[in-house]
Amino acid sequence: MKHLLLTAAAAASLILPVAASEPSAIPSPGEIAEAAPTADWIAIAPSDLLVMDLAPDAKGKPRRVVIQLMPAPFSQGWIGNIRKLAAAHWWDGTSINRVQDNYVVQWGDATEKKVLPEGLAAVPEREYQVRDTAKVMSIIETIHGNKERLKALVKEQRRSDPPVIYAPDMRTKVDPYADFQGFADGWPVAGSTGLWPIHCYGAVGVGRNMSPDTGSGAELYAVIGHAPRHLDRNIAVVGRVISGIEHLSSLPRGTEALGFYKAEAERTLIASIRIASELPAVEQPKFEYLSTESDSFARYADARANRRDPFFIRPAGGADICNIPVPVRPVAAK
Amino acid sequence: MKHLLLTAAAAASLILPVAASEPSAIPSPGEIAEAAPTADWIAIAPSDLLVMDLAPDAKGKPRRVVIQLMPAPFSQGWIGNIRKLAAAHWWDGTSINRVQDNYVVQWGDATEKKVLPEGLAAVPEREYQVRDTAKVMSIIETIHGNKERLKALVKEQRRSDPPVIYAPDMRTKVDPYADFQGFADGWPVAGSTGLWPIHCYGAVGVGRNMSPDTGSGAELYAVIGHAPRHLDRNIAVVGRVISGIEHLSSLPRGTEALGFYKAEAERTLIASIRIASELPAVEQPKFEYLSTESDSFARYADARANRRDPFFIRPAGGADICNIPVPVRPVAAK
Repeated sequence: MKHLLLTAAAAASLILPVAASEPSAIPSPGEIAEAAPTADWIAIAPSDLLVMDLAPDAKGKPRRVVIQLMPAPFSQGWIGNIRKLAAAHWWDGTSINRVQDNYVVQWGDATEKKVLPEGLAAVPEREYQVRDTAKVMSIIETIHGNKERLKALVKEQRRSDPPVIYAPDMRTKVDPYADFQGFADGWPVAGSTGLWPIHCYGAVGVGRNMSPDTGSGAELYAVIGHAPRHLDRNIAVVGRVISGIEHLSSLPRGTEALGFYKAEAERTLIASIRIASELPAVEQPKFEYLSTESDSFARYADARANRRDPFFIRPAGGADICNIPVPVRPVAAK
Repeated sequence: MKHLLLTAAAAASLILPVAASEPSAIPSPGEIAEAAPTADWIAIAPSDLLVMDLAPDAKGKPRRVVIQLMPAPFSQGWIGNIRKLAAAHWWDGTSINRVQDNYVVQWGDATEKKVLPEGLAAVPEREYQVRDTAKVMSIIETIHGNKERLKALVKEQRRSDPPVIYAPDMRTKVDPYADFQGFADGWPVAGSTGLWPIHCYGAVGVGRNMSPDTGSGAELYAVIGHAPRHLDRNIAVVGRVISGIEHLSSLPRGTEALGFYKAEAERTLIASIRIASELPAVEQPKFEYLSTESDSFARYADARANRRDPFFIRPAGGADICNIPVPVRPVAAK
């Protein structure tokens, strides 16, 4: 019995070989994404990347967090404010002020004295959802297209091996938080009478005070725990961390109520936050995401819901939307 | 606009006042649990607590993690092994070897040379589920009782204020991972032809190699991210972290494949792991959980699914089972 755990190779394969170097007969979700053709990967514009450089860690190592901002039609009022705050270098010298386990990391001005730039919009609560019928219908059509793609894939695979395939959503037509949900333009969204972005792990949102305040965008948080979807439609989701989340999620938890830090010394300094397109060209990080409208993504989502790679003995037969993270990867400099 | 974020009181109420000190007209889930009568809280036997003391942190502070072991009929083969390993002081001097972001922290013998105690059971894969019809039926009856309690509560509240109440599960009869799910004896469980424990945040499971190996229990992991429910029925869940998870979740992420640490210096030393009942009486930690068969829990679950406390403007109308963590609290020494 003990020998099974006693080799380096065995240790490395414990639990979940997502990053297995040898492709298996039945590929893992990660292998499916990696093998996707170049055409299925979509470049993220540098103007849609928010680059947060924290002060170096105790060993002097740089700590960069990259956030992809949501595309229209979602949350654009707050995102406009965030662009202005970054352009004004407003966050430089502010800090991470709150780390609550299984919940959020939050940053902004702990001194509570920093004057906000002129011209920020006061965004109303109705902007938590998209209600424009034409826009909603267009996004729903995209989601529907993805589901049809998945169904076709399932049908096709049923004619071959392995014989039994399930698709995500085959057990539940909806999720507990919405009447429908799915992926559109690279993002998980949910809807009933309107459409809204989802709080999954890594989601970035706008801290606020009591309603009808919706926050300016100067106080931001990132989700570092189980998807807190009760926040959907109660706070604005403006983006997601696509690189460096470990610099946030591994910070010491705050000991005050809600995970706020007690002493100034506990806070992590934010050296700067910039829109990537405002950085010198050579310093701009480059990323791409797997098109959620591609066959590769349909295969990836199906594999997330039904692990058939060698480690697994029983495919789940479904997945919740936050357990199907959209693959994002850095683009190597040429 | 800016003033809304500029007072200490405002800062403390940003996002989610779960720990608000002033009870509101409509209580938060945390307030409902806190107000539950003593009779609704069930003491956890010290013989069901696994106490892991890590080496003190860089500042010399103690780091204690307390794990509640699952009750019968779940995973008892591995739990028997874990009791033997703790009694043999087997983990003392081993380490935390893997920290993968949004996934798991894993510990055990990194040297891969430590001989396991005699007499550990080789537990078969069929033990990932409970299939004994009488036991399954008894647990399902408990779950059903909880749901009836919730329904009655919803009905009762609909006759009073606020007028519209939703219950978890009203939108989805099942979850994407199972044919049914619910709480029994303080634990979230799911089922179809059998019944099995669920991988929520904080769940502790048994690392293993490739099937048909199921692991001895010497390699354990704790979930530190979004519920990886694709692991359900593929790995044994043996317990959950009920205190000190921040000592695991805030560790630096490993940089090797699967989050394994590269260098020995990166590993965190485990000073000791004991069953609490084997510690001197005065050192035994004491905890209790909110009975999932109580009206208080039904109210708490409903409030988790439908936040009506002042911060929220739109109740979700549902919740996934891992977003309804069972309340656990320390018992103050007398």
